[in-house]
Amino acid sequence: MNYTFIENGSVTSPLGFIAGGTAAGVKAYTNATQAALKNEPLLPANGKRDLALIYCEKPCAAAAIFTKNLVKSDTIYVTRKHLENGVAQAVIVNSGNANACNPDGYEKAEKMCAIAAEVLGVNADDVIVASTGVIGQALPIEPIEKGANALKGKLSKEGGTDAAEAIMTTDTVKKEWAVQLTLGGKTVTIGGIAKGSGMIHINMGTTLSFVTTDAAISAKMLKAALIEAADVSYNMVSVDGDTSTNDTLAIMASGLAGNEEITEKNADYALFTEALTAAFRQVARKLAADGEGATKLVIGKVKGAKDEATAKTIAKSVICSSLVKAAMFGADANCGRILCAIGYSGAEVDVKKIDVSYKSAKGEILVCRDGMGLAFDEDKAKEILLENEIDILIQLGDGAGEAEAYGCDLTYDYVKINGDYRT
Amino acid sequence: MNYTFIENGSVTSPLGFIAGGTAAGVKAYTNATQAALKNEPLLPANGKRDLALIYCEKPCAAAAIFTKNLVKSDTIYVTRKHLENGVAQAVIVNSGNANACNPDGYEKAEKMCAIAAEVLGVNADDVIVASTGVIGQALPIEPIEKGANALKGKLSKEGGTDAAEAIMTTDTVKKEWAVQLTLGGKTVTIGGIAKGSGMIHINMGTTLSFVTTDAAISAKMLKAALIEAADVSYNMVSVDGDTSTNDTLAIMASGLAGNEEITEKNADYALFTEALTAAFRQVARKLAADGEGATKLVIGKVKGAKDEATAKTIAKSVICSSLVKAAMFGADANCGRILCAIGYSGAEVDVKKIDVSYKSAKGEILVCRDGMGLAFDEDKAKEILLENEIDILIQLGDGAGEAEAYGCDLTYDYVKINGDYRT
Repeated sequence: MNYTFIENGSVTSPLGFIAGGTAAGVKAYTNATQAALKNEPLLPANGKRDLALIYCEKPCAAAAIFTKNLVKSDTIYVTRKHLENGVAQAVIVNSGNANACNPDGYEKAEKMCAIAAEVLGVNADDVIVASTGVIGQALPIEPIEKGANALKGKLSKEGGTDAAEAIMTTDTVKKEWAVQLTLGGKTVTIGGIAKGSGMIHINMGTTLSFVTTDAAISAKMLKAALIEAADVSYNMVSVDGDTSTNDTLAIMASGLAGNEEITEKNADYALFTEALTAAFRQVARKLAADGEGATKLVIGKVKGAKDEATAKTIAKSVICSSLVKAAMFGADANCGRILCAIGYSGAEVDVKKIDVSYKSAKGEILVCRDGMGLAFDEDKAKEILLENEIDILIQLGDGAGEAEAYGCDLTYDYVKINGDYRT
Repeated sequence: MNYTFIENGSVTSPLGFIAGGTAAGVKAYTNATQAALKNEPLLPANGKRDLALIYCEKPCAAAAIFTKNLVKSDTIYVTRKHLENGVAQAVIVNSGNANACNPDGYEKAEKMCAIAAEVLGVNADDVIVASTGVIGQALPIEPIEKGANALKGKLSKEGGTDAAEAIMTTDTVKKEWAVQLTLGGKTVTIGGIAKGSGMIHINMGTTLSFVTTDAAISAKMLKAALIEAADVSYNMVSVDGDTSTNDTLAIMASGLAGNEEITEKNADYALFTEALTAAFRQVARKLAADGEGATKLVIGKVKGAKDEATAKTIAKSVICSSLVKAAMFGADANCGRILCAIGYSGAEVDVKKIDVSYKSAKGEILVCRDGMGLAFDEDKAKEILLENEIDILIQLGDGAGEAEAYGCDLTYDYVKINGDYRT
C-alpha cells in the first residue's frame, strides 16, 4: 500500500484549493415555480446548504467523465465543452434542481459558470458546472446568483465540508476524503467530495463527485486515471438500477506538490492511480451504504471466474437483484436468489461449481455448495445477516477472475423516499 | 376481433380436459426438512392447495417454452425431454418448493411424472412437470404422492379452478381464462391457468402457465404460436427484474374440436395465434397487477418509435425502473424519471421529440413535451395517478413502432413479502 488516508480530509486538502457551501434556497425556489408563474413571491431558503463552490488559486489540468444516459443535463454539455482544453479552475454545483430536461437548461448552466467566474475572478470557460435534484423543472438562477455572491471571499480550507454538504440530496451522510502518497520524494495529496444516494447505478458516473489533487499530471493522464479507478469503484455501485441524467466525476490537478509532471503511464502514474482507486473504492462503499433507505452495505465478492469481466457481470447481477436486496433487508440467508441472479446475469458459468457464503463481523456461513442449497444453521445465518455490512461470497471454481460490487438492501424507506420525492 | 373471452373459463374449458388441485402440504413438509433430518415427525398440510393435476382423455400435441435463466429447475430438463416427441397427456405441478438447485432434483421431477402417470393411467413420458416455490431445499415426494392419490378419480371440468389455486405462491388472485374462436366452421376453445407474482421479468416464461386447447394443431405450430404470443405478452411483463429458475409455459392440444389440423402458418394459424395472443396479453396484465405488493397496474405504451424493437426496449425500461415504480406508488407525476429511464434504455431516440402523458380512468395529463418537463396541474395529475390502472404514454415521433409493457408499482409490501419469503 503506497498511500495513506488522511483523517478529516476533503476536497480542500490538496495544495491550492479552497471551497465553500451555502443555503441558496434552490429547492424552495424550484418548488415555488408554479407560485412564481402566478406572480406570487418566491419562498426563502430553507436553511439547507445547496450551493457549493470549489476554487483553485491557479488554473488546473482537468478531466471528467459523465453519465451514459442519453438524456443528459445541460450542465454536462457545458462542462464537457469547458474541459475541451483540459483546463479548469473552479467548480459550481447546486443541489435541489437537476437542470435537466428544461428548455433553457444550457443557458442556465452557462449562466452558473458566469456567476462563478464573476465571484471567483476566473474565466467562465474554466468553470466546471453540475446540478442535482428534480428533473424537468426550471432552474431558478436568482438564488444561485445570490448564494454565490454570499460566498464571495468566504471560501476556505475548512469550506470543503460545507461544499460536501451542499451537494447532498437524499444522502444522509457527507462523503469527503483525502489520501496522500509520495511521488519522487514529494508529498502528493488527492481529495474529494461526492454525493449519491438514489438513482445510482453501474455505468460510470452514478453520482456527483469532485476530486482535487496537487499532483502535477497532464489532463490526458488525469482522464486515464479517472477511467481506470472508476471502472472498479463507481462503475460497480448500484442502489436502484437507475442511471442518472447528471452523473459527473470531475478532477482538477493544481501541480503545486512539485512532483515531476506525469505525462505518460509510468511508475508515478501507477502510484497515483492506485491511490485514486483506493479512495474511489472507499467512496463506492459509502455511496452504497448510504443508498436511499438502506440499512446495510451489501458487497458482492466474486472469485474464481474465468475472467474479470465475468466476475464483474455476476457481482453486479447479484447486488442489483431486488429479491436479493429485499432478502438482505430481512436478514434471510436465501441461497436460491443468489443462484438465480447468477443464472440470469448472462455470464457463462458452470452452475454445478458455484459455492455461496454470507459473511459479516459475526462470522461466515456456507449456504450453497456445487450449485446446490445446503441445510445450514438458520440462527447463525440470521446473526451474520443482522450486521450492517454483509459480504456475499461467490466462488465459481472456473479461473482467477475476481470482482467486487457494492450495493445495499431494499427497504420500506427506499419506497417511501421515492414514492414522493418531489414534495 | 375474431375471438370471444368466455366467462369463468379455465384450463378445463376446451374439450377433453379435466383438472384438480389439492392441499398436499408441500411447503409445510419443506419447512420441516431440518426437523425431518432429525427424525422428527413431518408436519401436516396447512390447508392451502399446492398440488395440481391436468389430464386429457387422449394424448395431445404439445409444446413448451422455458426460462432463459442459466440456473434451471430440473423440472425443466424433464419436461423438455418429455416433449421431444411433441406429445403430452397430463400435467403435474406443485407449489411450495421449486425443486431447483437440489442434488436429487432430476430424480424427483421424474418421480412426480411417474406418480401422475400412475394416478392418471398415462405414460410417464407424456407428463409435463413443473414446480414453484423456495429454491435450494429438498423437494418432499411423500406429500406429492399422497396428494396425487387423493386426487385420483376426482379430476373434473370444475377442477380447473382448484388447479389454478394450487399453483399460486404469493399470488393474491387466481389466473384462469378461456377464449373461443371459429376455425373452418368449428368452435375452438383455448383455456389456461397461470401463476406469477414476484420473480417475474421480461425474458420468456416469467411464470408458470398451462394452456389447453381442443384445436387440432401440430406440436410444431403450437410452439410457433406460443413463441409469437408470448413475445408481446409474457415477455413484456416485469414485476421485479428477476427471472425465475422455473418459468414454464406449456400448451396441449387435444384436437377434439374437429377443425382441420393446423400444420402450417395459414389463415387458421393466424386466427389461433391472434386469440392466444389476446389471452396472453390479458394474463400479462393480471400478472403485473398481482405483482408482489403491487397496488397498481402500470402499462408503458410507446408509440412513434422507429421500429418495434425500439418501442419494446423503451416500454420495458420505463416499467422496470425502480424510481418510476416507486413514483407510481406515491402517485407522483414525475416526468424526469420517465425520461431518465428512456435515456438509459439503450434505445436510439431523439430526446428532443419525446412526449410523455399519464392516463387513467380519471383522464389524461401531458407532463413532458419535446423532451422538456411541463408545468402541469398537480391536483389533476394526482387524481389520475391515484387510480389502480395507469398508462404511461410515450410518443417518440420517430416512426410507426409500437409496444406495450406491463408492470406495477414498487411498494412497502413488496419489500415486506420479499424481506422474509421463506418464513
